[in-house]
Formats: sequence, structure tokens, C-alpha cells
Amino acid sequence: MTASISLRLDFEAGRIGPGKIELLERIAAHGSIAAAGRSLGMSYRRAWMLVDEMNRIFGRALVETAQGGRAGGGARLSALGTRVATHYRAAEAAALAASGAHLDALLAELGAPGECDRPV
Amino acid sequence: MTASISLRLDFEAGRIGPGKIELLERIAAHGSIAAAGRSLGMSYRRAWMLVDEMNRIFGRALVETAQGGRAGGGARLSALGTRVATHYRAAEAAALAASGAHLDALLAELGAPGECDRPV
Repeated sequence: MTASISLRLDFEAGRIGPGKIELLERIAAHGSIAAAGRSLGMSYRRAWMLVDEMNRIFGRALVETAQGGRAGGGARLSALGTRVATHYRAAEAAALAASGAHLDALLAELGAPGECDRPV
Repeated sequence: MTASISLRLDFEAGRIGPGKIELLERIAAHGSIAAAGRSLGMSYRRAWMLVDEMNRIFGRALVETAQGGRAGGGARLSALGTRVATHYRAAEAAALAASGAHLDALLAELGAPGECDRPV
């Protein structure tokens, strides 16, 4: 049995969780909001709205788009976007390491009948 | 500005996050699934389904219901239910303490323009 943990950060202006962070990482990898969204099974419109929401949360662009050109431009993370993804993953790793003993205790309860617990 | 963190645990049989844990805590406080759900603005059916989902994840009852009687019975956490809520809150506290420095770094980015970041 396995358990994973995911962090959800609630800021005053919005929420950031694993979905938005993975989108940032895919944009960095693919160089395009559309391709990043496709790789996650989401429409360009949906990917663009998530990027726009992050930009509004931080008040600045996390993703920079190149406009014009025959290929229709591309996209890459701004320095801010890179820092946000990096800090999020570091927070996630630290959280997982610190809570490991408690998660193990929860996992140990899965399907391990205790004397006071009746089956369902 | 503030940020809070919430843990979402993905087990093979389902997912546990702050909503289900808060429901358990309200059941312990109110002694009733219906009253606990009402206090969170959810229907009895919705509260009952969440409890049932948790019972299935763990393979045993987290909530014990007393049946019959004029008042229609009540509900309380089983020993397992109490342990699950306790471990979850302990994991949450440990995760928050461990990731604090990274969350502070994210908070510091909110509305603090950097030289390489253009406004949106």
C-alpha cells in the first residue's frame, strides 16, 4: 500500500496546488502553453486560464509568451515562475519528510483490524 | 498576507483531505452525522457518503452509529476514527513546520516586483 501527499496553498488571491505547479513545469519542458496543456489532457483555454490565475495571485507574470513569428510564438517561465515551482517542490519534499512517521501510522491502519473496530 | 497549507492524502482506495477530517471532528463534537454535516453546510446524504468512503478506504468503520431509540440514535468516532483524525492533524502540523521557510519564500514573492519580472 502506498500514500502520497500533495500540498495545497491557499493565498488570499487564490489557490496553488500540484495541478498548477505541474502545468508550470510542463510549460518549461515544452516551451508552449498549448503543448503543456495537451500533455496534461487539458484544452489551451483551460491551461491559459490557470496561468492567468497564477499571474494574478502573484501580481506578475510567471509565464512569458513570445508573440508573433511564423510559429505563433512560444512560452517559457519567468524567473518568478521558476522560483515559485522550485519553492513549491521544496516545500512538498520537506512536508513529506517531516510527516512521514504520521503517514506511516495512517498506512498501518489500512486493512489492519483492531480489537475495537468492527468490520464494515 | 497569509498562506495556509492543506494535506491531501492519496491512498489506493481513495483520498483523504481536510474536508473529510473536519467532518470526523464535527461528528465527534456533535455526536451526530446529520448535525456535523449541517454545521459544515452539507446534506445528511453528502456527509454520510463521505463517512462511507472513509470506511471503505480503511476497510473498517471510522464512525459508529447507534441505531433505534426515540432520538434516532447518534454517531461517534470509533477508536480507528479518532486515530485517523489525530494522525492527520499531526502530519499536517509537522508538514507546516517543516515547509515554513519555503512557504515564507513564496509569500515574499507576492506583489514584490523583481527586476526580471514584468507586471501583468
